[in-house]
Amino acid sequence: MIYQSAVGNPKPGQDLTPSEIRQLCRDGKFTGVTAGLAPGYVQANLVVLPRSLAFDFLLFCQRNPKPCPVLDVTDEGNPEARFLAPGADIRTDLPLYRIYRRGKLVEETTEIRSFWREDSVGFLIGCSFTFERAMLAAGLPVRHIEEGRNVPMYRTNRACTPAGCFSGEMVVSMRPMPPHHAIQAVKITSHYHKAHGAPVHIGDPAVLGIKNLDKPDYGNPVTIHEGEIPVFWACGVTPQAVILQTKPELAITHAPGHMFIADIKDEELAL
Amino acid sequence: MIYQSAVGNPKPGQDLTPSEIRQLCRDGKFTGVTAGLAPGYVQANLVVLPRSLAFDFLLFCQRNPKPCPVLDVTDEGNPEARFLAPGADIRTDLPLYRIYRRGKLVEETTEIRSFWREDSVGFLIGCSFTFERAMLAAGLPVRHIEEGRNVPMYRTNRACTPAGCFSGEMVVSMRPMPPHHAIQAVKITSHYHKAHGAPVHIGDPAVLGIKNLDKPDYGNPVTIHEGEIPVFWACGVTPQAVILQTKPELAITHAPGHMFIADIKDEELAL
Repeated sequence: MIYQSAVGNPKPGQDLTPSEIRQLCRDGKFTGVTAGLAPGYVQANLVVLPRSLAFDFLLFCQRNPKPCPVLDVTDEGNPEARFLAPGADIRTDLPLYRIYRRGKLVEETTEIRSFWREDSVGFLIGCSFTFERAMLAAGLPVRHIEEGRNVPMYRTNRACTPAGCFSGEMVVSMRPMPPHHAIQAVKITSHYHKAHGAPVHIGDPAVLGIKNLDKPDYGNPVTIHEGEIPVFWACGVTPQAVILQTKPELAITHAPGHMFIADIKDEELAL
Repeated sequence: MIYQSAVGNPKPGQDLTPSEIRQLCRDGKFTGVTAGLAPGYVQANLVVLPRSLAFDFLLFCQRNPKPCPVLDVTDEGNPEARFLAPGADIRTDLPLYRIYRRGKLVEETTEIRSFWREDSVGFLIGCSFTFERAMLAAGLPVRHIEEGRNVPMYRTNRACTPAGCFSGEMVVSMRPMPPHHAIQAVKITSHYHKAHGAPVHIGDPAVLGIKNLDKPDYGNPVTIHEGEIPVFWACGVTPQAVILQTKPELAITHAPGHMFIADIKDEELAL
């Protein structure tokens, strides 16, 4: 059995391979958050939509690559994540899912076989865990990890580029740090354009329409020390927020923090 | 009036802006190749497909980003290239087009208004002109430009990742250079992942299934000097070759070398 853990805090289960963790999920033996598991391997956000919405959504991702870096798209009706993890079944291999009908959360479930349809298409989207590991490796502070919290995330006033039925504002995550570390963070995260890439903003939150950093819309607030500035990255919550606004008949996502763990390594996402 | 010219050779018309060149195309006053025009501005390959094939094709591009770096996708039925050049009309603003029916070239034409449909979707795809300019600026040799020819291109044995109805082999372009320049070329072109990015191969053509560098499948052969090695990049001819293999009812492309000229600069495609 493995336990919930935060990125960077060694915990039981860290020595499991991605396929071992996916097997535990498949067997219903692991339903926790994936932060800190299989260090060095890519983790991904999941969105499942009917084929009728797939072009609009893929186009939305193409037009908004910072919040929505597409890592893998499953073939219609086929639940295999062929490119991120050949043989993996996205219906069973994540620890926890959310089922939305017409934009409303109706159920949390540990597998989605009964919700999967002949016309289902799965999208796996890059996640900030990838660049956070690179930042930690370079000795940069990642405050929410230091404080054992979820990263603070905020709705912004920055409109995504619409595509078909999908439109909405960007959600950002925030990590505070001193300016010299912010410069390093831009350099490091620029390499990971498949994991949100360089920040979208540094400094004054008001520029993004954020009124109070202590009141994030998702996740938890973190301490900002004197002399630190907030650094904002496009966040993988954006596509979910945008999808739910359009109220599709059926949408399935991972539960927050309960990601898909791929067989490829973080470094493979670096340019 | 402006004239045909090669990248890097100053010619009449080089001082025209992208919008002035597009206006000349729209007025039927320019029907030549665009190499060397509007230096510093992005040029793009064009593919127009019916909406029924658009998801498969966008997914093919997502899975094969080196040959198919998508720069812009027009909204269904709307010919405006909103992101590359707001106001530009892809039905009229390129110098020359090719019309394919069931995979067969049936017509070359200077505008495609009569072929445009309510369900047409246009894809604008990055082009090697962008990285060639960066290579020239760094003092690297670009042999086909030196010799006033079209770049040599070859079919390979390297399968693209299929998507829906689209599959086929990658086409590559080749530029010979001494090893120390090849190293520089990798560094420079890596920055332009929206213009084919780093090479896909350096050295032995047989590895790609290419038998004779003197007999390219497209374009012209170029001189390879003693001590030089061939450097191969994924080529924007790939998506066209793949599309024509599937014999869609209607496909429209730019005529080779007669590209769309965007309002954004090459540097905006650098990571």
